[in-house]
Amino acid sequence: MPDPADLTGQFPIDVDAATIQRHIDELGAIGEHPEGGLYRALYTPSWETGMALVESWLAEIGLETRRDAVGNLFGRLAGTESDRVVLTGSHIDTVKQGGKYDGALGIHAAIAAVGALKTAFGHPRTTLEVYVICEEEGSRFHSDFWGSRALLGRIAPDEVESLTDADGVTIGQAMRERGFDPAGIPSAQRADVEAFVELHIEQGRILNDEGYDVGVVDTITGQRHYRVRVSGQQDHAGTTPMDLRRDAVAGAAEMIERITSAAAGIGRPAVATIGTLAVSPGAVNIVPGACTFSIDTRHSDVAGRRALLRTIESILREVADRRGLGLDLEQLTDHEPVPMTPAIRDLVEASARAEGLRYLVMPSGAGHDSQLMAQHLPTGMIFVPSRDGRSHTPAEHTEIERVVPGVRVLARTLHRLAY
Amino acid sequence: MPDPADLTGQFPIDVDAATIQRHIDELGAIGEHPEGGLYRALYTPSWETGMALVESWLAEIGLETRRDAVGNLFGRLAGTESDRVVLTGSHIDTVKQGGKYDGALGIHAAIAAVGALKTAFGHPRTTLEVYVICEEEGSRFHSDFWGSRALLGRIAPDEVESLTDADGVTIGQAMRERGFDPAGIPSAQRADVEAFVELHIEQGRILNDEGYDVGVVDTITGQRHYRVRVSGQQDHAGTTPMDLRRDAVAGAAEMIERITSAAAGIGRPAVATIGTLAVSPGAVNIVPGACTFSIDTRHSDVAGRRALLRTIESILREVADRRGLGLDLEQLTDHEPVPMTPAIRDLVEASARAEGLRYLVMPSGAGHDSQLMAQHLPTGMIFVPSRDGRSHTPAEHTEIERVVPGVRVLARTLHRLAY
Repeated sequence: MPDPADLTGQFPIDVDAATIQRHIDELGAIGEHPEGGLYRALYTPSWETGMALVESWLAEIGLETRRDAVGNLFGRLAGTESDRVVLTGSHIDTVKQGGKYDGALGIHAAIAAVGALKTAFGHPRTTLEVYVICEEEGSRFHSDFWGSRALLGRIAPDEVESLTDADGVTIGQAMRERGFDPAGIPSAQRADVEAFVELHIEQGRILNDEGYDVGVVDTITGQRHYRVRVSGQQDHAGTTPMDLRRDAVAGAAEMIERITSAAAGIGRPAVATIGTLAVSPGAVNIVPGACTFSIDTRHSDVAGRRALLRTIESILREVADRRGLGLDLEQLTDHEPVPMTPAIRDLVEASARAEGLRYLVMPSGAGHDSQLMAQHLPTGMIFVPSRDGRSHTPAEHTEIERVVPGVRVLARTLHRLAY
Repeated sequence: MPDPADLTGQFPIDVDAATIQRHIDELGAIGEHPEGGLYRALYTPSWETGMALVESWLAEIGLETRRDAVGNLFGRLAGTESDRVVLTGSHIDTVKQGGKYDGALGIHAAIAAVGALKTAFGHPRTTLEVYVICEEEGSRFHSDFWGSRALLGRIAPDEVESLTDADGVTIGQAMRERGFDPAGIPSAQRADVEAFVELHIEQGRILNDEGYDVGVVDTITGQRHYRVRVSGQQDHAGTTPMDLRRDAVAGAAEMIERITSAAAGIGRPAVATIGTLAVSPGAVNIVPGACTFSIDTRHSDVAGRRALLRTIESILREVADRRGLGLDLEQLTDHEPVPMTPAIRDLVEASARAEGLRYLVMPSGAGHDSQLMAQHLPTGMIFVPSRDGRSHTPAEHTEIERVVPGVRVLARTLHRLAY
């Protein structure tokens, strides 16, 4: 690994802001959803159109392009000394009614950075590849990280027939319709990758609100989803005195109030969100017999996360017991926090410092390909600000002046890794 | 009015429990809903079948029957001294998937009481009529108290064409299909009624849980429904720190917790129920931008109700202001408490005492025809226990041994009013 201390002074590359903006707009016009925003779902026609467009851009800057067995796209700038590969990029798919920046900007930044490095310095010592990841969001099939899992050899053979979309189409069928042979999936695994660097929008409001240029990601937050079912006793809302009730919604409200207050009390980076809630039977004049809600809770520190989870579970149990309510607690997702590789994170930080930027070392509250990659390869992430913290919406936006500094940090980091 | 103090000692009437039970079962078999329970909605074939059956029972005990212009059914036992009328009865319609007791039991009790009085004492001085009310629940048309409103001359002319059911059928159309002429509605108004006494199931668990034989209703609770819309800011659940959120559900949870605690703190008869709640956009990993919920709140005391409403509204405003949330508060229903006529209530209480029963003077938490009648005529109500407090469900039940004492209290009361 290069010494971050070397990363100082002028860095004579020319980042082409106009081209990045054009790429944002052109890819951002592919996959328009009838109800607004984009929906470029894996193996759909708009996904293929987007892939072909990006492939043409890779060829334009003189990179050698290749698709793997699941459709990941690579643009290669061969190394003069080593066939080991430094990858940079992000995913091309979007959520339903998503925006032009989530994922896509990491591809645009990678093309701009590799293009600028090539122009300024020619071929690197170590091979550099732009990595256009076929899928990350899990928006079409009930699974995410399809592209990175293929690259890391972490797709189970039965997934081809077991993963289906909302219409019942298996992912294997969708692959074949798009011209990919599911039998070839194992060939997508790569053993030649030395590092991965991903630029992404923050998807939150911290950089935007607090005036930072870029974020240096140190961890991807650990996450747990619960499904909580509180059961009480259904009663007439007029004829049942408060002291004879076992009201599922009153109990759930106390749980939610205390859980969100506890997370707020712990402070950053602890979060807890109740995003869905259903009441049964759901009539104005009936004391609810049951209430089901979700808890999405995240923390980027292993011990902090454990303490947060203990607090949440003890609040749920204490409130249910005291109120005589039934509690059914189901754990849906559970990921430990994933630290970025310290050497890469330090390089990113040193690059930001060398650029004279105001940067924040911060956790990522959202999941990214980097969280999977970092468990197997040296990996780092750069955040650029999201206007008003918006993401997964057509309102997602980052001004081009706020993109370019991130691209320069990426280029500096790649330069130290590959040249 | 008779002096309640006279109501003591033996009361030689014979209440026919077996016939009451047969009536419960026979009317309880009319209008079975395909998904369980009963649905005898106004002017439907099952409503007509039920009406015809009850009319046959009225004739069986020698009462002169008559239907009015909206379909209310009366069974008359003429007075020897006065054409003024004491009415007793309840409604024949049910909610969707309702039970055999709500409304119907008041009809069965009226028939049993008037029949027993006639057998024991012959014709009264003041005319006695069993009153089979055509509609109370508002289950088919978006309006309730159709029968009592007709009797009290409180149907507005335009309702005939403006009230519709879920299929768009106007109430006027439904009347004509059943052979009633909407033009005749004003003729249903009566100026000859001197008093109304209604027996009804409690629909709550107080008598059942606390071992009372009957309830002497002193007030019908005042009720207000609110629709509360809390608006915050939709954000990513992972990337938005707690301190930067305006979480609509966290705010709503605090409101609900504090409102239900406040009602519980005030104690009986204050109640507050949040029976419906919807979250927008409603995804596990999105901080909710909006949350809408209902509040059904009731209190049987005018000043107590005002204080409760002030407390609820101040909690809503305080929480919304402190959390920077928008608050849109809509008032859907609002009824002041309606006291039963003291003289009738005292007669009912004296009758219960004379029967040697364990009785509770209590408010009604649910609405009844009596709340409308009491605003225009001397009116009183008798409650019998609901097993496990259940109502508006096929599980609605009152054991016949718990019905008979109520019927005897009704008969004693009618005797004092009419003989």
